[in-house]
Amino acid sequence: MNDKIIITISRQFGSGGRNIAKKIAKAMDIPFYDNELIIEGAKESGIDPDMVRALEETPTNSLFYSLSTSSVFGGGQFSPIIDLPMTDKVFLAQSEVIRKFAEKGSCVIVGRCANYVLRDDPDTLDVFIHRSVDERVNQVAKLYDLSQKKARETVKKVDKQRSGYYSYYSDKNWGQADNYDLALNSGLLGEDGCVAVIQSYIDKMMQRRKVRGQR
Amino acid sequence: MNDKIIITISRQFGSGGRNIAKKIAKAMDIPFYDNELIIEGAKESGIDPDMVRALEETPTNSLFYSLSTSSVFGGGQFSPIIDLPMTDKVFLAQSEVIRKFAEKGSCVIVGRCANYVLRDDPDTLDVFIHRSVDERVNQVAKLYDLSQKKARETVKKVDKQRSGYYSYYSDKNWGQADNYDLALNSGLLGEDGCVAVIQSYIDKMMQRRKVRGQR
Repeated sequence: MNDKIIITISRQFGSGGRNIAKKIAKAMDIPFYDNELIIEGAKESGIDPDMVRALEETPTNSLFYSLSTSSVFGGGQFSPIIDLPMTDKVFLAQSEVIRKFAEKGSCVIVGRCANYVLRDDPDTLDVFIHRSVDERVNQVAKLYDLSQKKARETVKKVDKQRSGYYSYYSDKNWGQADNYDLALNSGLLGEDGCVAVIQSYIDKMMQRRKVRGQR
Repeated sequence: MNDKIIITISRQFGSGGRNIAKKIAKAMDIPFYDNELIIEGAKESGIDPDMVRALEETPTNSLFYSLSTSSVFGGGQFSPIIDLPMTDKVFLAQSEVIRKFAEKGSCVIVGRCANYVLRDDPDTLDVFIHRSVDERVNQVAKLYDLSQKKARETVKKVDKQRSGYYSYYSDKNWGQADNYDLALNSGLLGEDGCVAVIQSYIDKMMQRRKVRGQR
């Protein structure tokens, strides 16, 4: 039986999804990859990490603007015609990095449409973590020392960015349950509860693989 | 601590969600309520079960048509002006039945927007069961002895009906992960695996309630 598992985690901002992902990786003693590691990995394709950070999950509608005005690019020196292929190049380079991580063995990957990038990989378990807006606003206000108003704006903005990024590249809706194998409301469970339920899912899935002798 | 739990199950057609719901109810030794029981319960409000069955999760766009042509109503004797309140009356009567079931104590309720109807009830756990279209088509073809083509049409049609019904009454998207506390791909887990993961979720949720002493 094949025990390999690539856990991709998508998450609403402030849901605790990143922590849950780290905890799962630790509990299972497998590598954890996040945006930073994916961006660093893309260096090999000649992608400048600073440029990627500047684009940070920006939906395409805003890319034209951010690319043509961002100081990273010297301000206004790019035309939209050049911009689009560059953002696609970044996405492709990151996707290549994600595939290389997945090839190495079991791991947890957070963000960057990893569930979409690895859609043809039979060893993935795709997880989505969400939580009520009010609870996320409180969490973000506390974590980043923001006012309630500012925290609410930030939650809205980051969710919109992630949703836009996902829809643009996958042509699917971010947060639609059937894009994921498991979606959890972390507000009812807490981070450790989510870790336990994800582990329970993996146990049952592995038992089924074994019984079916599929692999 | 309050141990009461109302488990609502929404499901794509052919996902095995109804069986999973029945198995959960059996494992937890709590009542199971489905469409039939909800429809029967609505009798008390003067709603004719035959009429409700004729409307069976029909999205509103088609209601005008089905109401004005259905033999149940004598064919064409209702104008759209009368029709809309009647379908709403059915929905309200069913919602009342669902609320009464929930008041009685822990239970499992399948379908009829129960998660939306009980949205303000703090004791609910809202579950969504989905599965890949191809697997559902195979399942439906086998269960109902249909050709692949007919099974695919049926899956599409019933999903569309459920989605339309849910969106019309809740103003939310059916199958959007954050409308549910737990969403599962039953294709990876099987029915018994889903039951086990739902139970694991409930265990962790109850532990958390206890620790927090919220209730």
